[in-house]
Amino acid sequence: MTNDLILQNIGKHVVLDKEEAAQFISLLQEEDVPKKGVVLKEGQLCKTISFVNAGALRAYHISKEGKETTVMFALPDWWITDMFCFIHRQPAMLYIEAIEPSHIFQLRKDDLDKLYLKVPKFERFFRVLMQNAYIREQLRMIQKLSLSAEERYIHFLDKYPQIVEKITQKQIASYLGITPEFLSTIRANRAKR
Amino acid sequence: MTNDLILQNIGKHVVLDKEEAAQFISLLQEEDVPKKGVVLKEGQLCKTISFVNAGALRAYHISKEGKETTVMFALPDWWITDMFCFIHRQPAMLYIEAIEPSHIFQLRKDDLDKLYLKVPKFERFFRVLMQNAYIREQLRMIQKLSLSAEERYIHFLDKYPQIVEKITQKQIASYLGITPEFLSTIRANRAKR
Repeated sequence: MTNDLILQNIGKHVVLDKEEAAQFISLLQEEDVPKKGVVLKEGQLCKTISFVNAGALRAYHISKEGKETTVMFALPDWWITDMFCFIHRQPAMLYIEAIEPSHIFQLRKDDLDKLYLKVPKFERFFRVLMQNAYIREQLRMIQKLSLSAEERYIHFLDKYPQIVEKITQKQIASYLGITPEFLSTIRANRAKR
Repeated sequence: MTNDLILQNIGKHVVLDKEEAAQFISLLQEEDVPKKGVVLKEGQLCKTISFVNAGALRAYHISKEGKETTVMFALPDWWITDMFCFIHRQPAMLYIEAIEPSHIFQLRKDDLDKLYLKVPKFERFFRVLMQNAYIREQLRMIQKLSLSAEERYIHFLDKYPQIVEKITQKQIASYLGITPEFLSTIRANRAKR
C-alpha cells in the first residue's frame, strides 16, 4: 500500500517538505487487520493512534453489565484512538476492531511527542484534528438534545453512507443511543411513507 | 484585574517571551459580566472564546420544546465557547451566561487565526486545550455508559466542588442527564446513610 492517503490527510492542514514527510512516514507502523481483528482491547495500554488507510474500524465500550455501545467509527482517511488513554498512557476503556479487512498506519505516543518537537507543524495538524474531534462530540451531544431519534438516524445515514451496510442495526442503534426495537420502528415507519 | 492568571494558564503548556506575551495580551478584550449576564446567545454569531479570570460561566442548550440542558461549566482558569460555531463562524447553538459576577477575557477568532501565524507556540497551546476538551467529552460519554447516576453525581461533587453551591439542583441534574426527581432520590438516599 502507498502512503498517498495519509500524506494527503496531513496536507489538508500543513505543508510538509520532502524531509519532513519522510521523517513522519518513518515513524508509522503499517498493519493489516482482518475483519473483526482487534486493534485495541479494554485494559490494554493504549500506545498508538491509528490512521485508516483502507477498510473501517469501530470503537465500542462494554459496561460492567455486558452492554455494548458503539462510540465511534473510522473510515479511510480518519484517525482513531481511545484519546484519554492514549494521552495519559492509561489502560484503554474502549475496544477498537475492524468491521471489514483494513489496512492501518499506527503512530506511537512517544514518537508523536518527539515529532511535535522536531516538526512543529504537527502541532497545527493535531490542533485541527483535536478541534474537529471535540466539535464532533459537542455536535453529537447537542443533536441528542435537539433532534428526534428519527432525525438523528437520517443524519447518520447522510454522514456515514459507507458504514450503514457494514454494521448491524444493533450497532447503529447503540451509536444513536436508542434501543434496536425503536430503530426498527423508525425504519418501518420510513419504509411505509 | 491583572493578566496573571491567563498568562499562567498559557504558561502551563508553552513558554512565551515578553514580546509574545504582550502581543497575546493586546488581543484580549476584558469584560465584567454580572450574575445571569449573557456572554453568548443562541442564534448569535459566536466570534469569541472566553477565558474565565474570576467568577463562573455555564453553557446550556434550549430545545425546541423549551427544555434546558446544562452542557458545561467554566471556572476561573478555564476557557469556554460554543466551539463548533466559533470555528465555523456559525450562529451559536448554546447560551453561555454567568452564574455569578464574573470577569472574563475574550479572544476573537480572527485574532486567534493571526496569532497562530505570528506566534506558532499557540498552535501547541490550543492543541493541548482542544485535546483536553475532547478527552473531557469522551470521558463524560463513557462515564454515562459505565457508571450509575449516583456514581456520576459523586464524580461531579469531587470535580466541581466550587460549582455545586452556585447552581440549582435542576442544572446539576440536566448536566448529569437525569431528572431532578431522580437526583433528589439519590441525595436523600445518601443523606440517610
